[in-house]
Amino acid sequence: MALTRSPLAPQRMISLPPMAGVRVATTAAGVRYQGRDDVTLFVFDRPASFAGVFTLSATAAPSVKHSRRVAAGGSVRAISIVAGNANVFTGKAGYDAVEAITADLAHHLNCSPHEIAHSATGIIGEPFPANRILPHHAALIAHATAEGWDAASDAIATTDTYSKRATHQVHLPSGAIVTFNGIAKGSGMIKPNMATMLSYIVTDAAVDPDILQAMLTRAADQTFNCISVDTDTSTSDSLMLAATGVVPLSPQDHDAFEAGLTQVCQNLALQIICDGEGARKLITVTVTGAASTHDAKAVAMAVAESPLVKTAIAAEDANWGRIVMAIGKSGVPLDPARLTVQLGGHPLVVSEGRITPFDESPFAQHLKEDEIRIAIDLGMGSVRGHAWGCDLTHAYIDINASYRS
Amino acid sequence: MALTRSPLAPQRMISLPPMAGVRVATTAAGVRYQGRDDVTLFVFDRPASFAGVFTLSATAAPSVKHSRRVAAGGSVRAISIVAGNANVFTGKAGYDAVEAITADLAHHLNCSPHEIAHSATGIIGEPFPANRILPHHAALIAHATAEGWDAASDAIATTDTYSKRATHQVHLPSGAIVTFNGIAKGSGMIKPNMATMLSYIVTDAAVDPDILQAMLTRAADQTFNCISVDTDTSTSDSLMLAATGVVPLSPQDHDAFEAGLTQVCQNLALQIICDGEGARKLITVTVTGAASTHDAKAVAMAVAESPLVKTAIAAEDANWGRIVMAIGKSGVPLDPARLTVQLGGHPLVVSEGRITPFDESPFAQHLKEDEIRIAIDLGMGSVRGHAWGCDLTHAYIDINASYRS
Repeated sequence: MALTRSPLAPQRMISLPPMAGVRVATTAAGVRYQGRDDVTLFVFDRPASFAGVFTLSATAAPSVKHSRRVAAGGSVRAISIVAGNANVFTGKAGYDAVEAITADLAHHLNCSPHEIAHSATGIIGEPFPANRILPHHAALIAHATAEGWDAASDAIATTDTYSKRATHQVHLPSGAIVTFNGIAKGSGMIKPNMATMLSYIVTDAAVDPDILQAMLTRAADQTFNCISVDTDTSTSDSLMLAATGVVPLSPQDHDAFEAGLTQVCQNLALQIICDGEGARKLITVTVTGAASTHDAKAVAMAVAESPLVKTAIAAEDANWGRIVMAIGKSGVPLDPARLTVQLGGHPLVVSEGRITPFDESPFAQHLKEDEIRIAIDLGMGSVRGHAWGCDLTHAYIDINASYRS
Repeated sequence: MALTRSPLAPQRMISLPPMAGVRVATTAAGVRYQGRDDVTLFVFDRPASFAGVFTLSATAAPSVKHSRRVAAGGSVRAISIVAGNANVFTGKAGYDAVEAITADLAHHLNCSPHEIAHSATGIIGEPFPANRILPHHAALIAHATAEGWDAASDAIATTDTYSKRATHQVHLPSGAIVTFNGIAKGSGMIKPNMATMLSYIVTDAAVDPDILQAMLTRAADQTFNCISVDTDTSTSDSLMLAATGVVPLSPQDHDAFEAGLTQVCQNLALQIICDGEGARKLITVTVTGAASTHDAKAVAMAVAESPLVKTAIAAEDANWGRIVMAIGKSGVPLDPARLTVQLGGHPLVVSEGRITPFDESPFAQHLKEDEIRIAIDLGMGSVRGHAWGCDLTHAYIDINASYRS
């Protein structure tokens, strides 16, 4: 089916600047889609520091298993991304395809296959046509340019209705300036478990792989792991970060660098949730007064993921009892009498009931907006947490009842 | 909105027979609905043995908190059920209402309020009109009859599109014959956590409350706790079982009695899932070869609850990769190479891929049926489990975007 652009898409589509040390190429290999690029290659001038966060699915893709080994090695020469076929549960042939692609690229780049990261996204279980991809490798490497980022953000998309791009510069305490460029894709089957659908971030900083991995894991926990479109976790979720090593950092720069990285991750994660299948409203849930990080996250996710909360918000209906229901089902111990809920900044629930006197109009007004803000205080401690979700509309069903057709 | 009868409703609506020791009455108190009965009262001739399984929600209803105490006491003289308003998060007034209702019934029946079980179901957070209910108590007690069961199954309904009734007779090893009558309601906000939406079962057997409770807990775990319409757990889930004590049991009868109880629970649980909001297909997931009961249930529920599996089944689309995805996200460790999946009895997934040669026609044919059967073998042990779900259709969104209107 034809997908209309999400009403929550960014007003203005930015263009990503070149970054020292990395070149990007895309091509149309006809893997599944016709008339558009579907293969992307990042090529690094020198081995780059590499970190990755991947799906915890027990049926993870062969490409995920391979890229996990690349991240463990900490060094990357190229990242290959194929859109249209996830190459999951395609038997031994699927593993052979990953080996063929990474070995061929390693041969061209004169490195080990364990320095070639690889992703594939799209339908699960259909035979994967590696033979359509291999003949393009030489030209992809030859034509990769520093300007290839925007085309890459288009070429990795599947059911996305817009391309996800982010760029961010950080002025570090030492005086150095580092840049992050990031792209992402994802719209349905989005409840990343330790990662996101697919996202690639490159920085020109010089950072050791171990430090890079620790920073990326923390950033993902605060951003990509706080979003859910539909509770379904992909077999291919991958967030990769490469550091080309052009800009040296001093130890005093690490906190500011990590804050910048987290900001880029949050930017891309929000772009994914705003392109949630069928979404017309962004739901932001903040939880305060929790006894633990786990509790804060569990309550926020329970509300952001509840089908009954999501359908009420789609209908712009201030049916706040469903928020209370979702808090209650989260499994987090609480004292209902201490619980407070605000909607759009207006107090709503207090003392195990709605505020008195009760006037529904400010809530009805807030629900007409694009972003719905639910703030919950548990009164059980001092820990904060958050989650982002989207409303559940007929378009979600339309999209997912026709995805294969 | 007007709800059309589920296409999965029983072909023939049975009538429940009288049961020795219990009488039933209903009346129209105008709690929320007009032109139909909305208050139900079970009255027991003598104190009956009583057991209950209730929601684990942290925002449970005042009526649930009260009935939990009644179940702890093990004896019941009456059960009061109100439809249209859940009396949840209605502040102190909500607790006062439960106390007023149970105290008034206790006064009429000359017993303790802790022998009066009580439930309320419907919207959360709206003021609960106890004053409309109390004046009906004397007439309800006076007019309760052994024939009142069918009217009760109608009067406890909210968004249900048909009444849920079950009756079952068991011939016990000792020669005794016991009967179970049960009614239930529920359609949305259905993922019972240790209980179901609302269900009431009465038997004429004589069973100690402690034994009755243990049997009910085990039966609920195998039945009501294996269904999910929409992953949302109600604040009011309650399953109650009363034994009027007319038919004495010998110890050798207990296993057959519990099997009969479990059968009635499964019958009612399946009637609830078949009335899942917007449901047009029943999804039955069986898991074998699991390493533990937890693993079997987690995999079965992950598949039965996945929005992407549910939308594919609604579209009669054999998009089996989504089944693999859902198994993978369950959090259960597995070896993909040992996993097998059957759909409608036909082998589908083996050796981490689809069967070869692959012919989609038997699966496409099965997906046209009302009941979709997914059988998963994990190859990790010998434990079995199951779950029941329903497909996700536009009607679910229609119903839940308009429930308050």
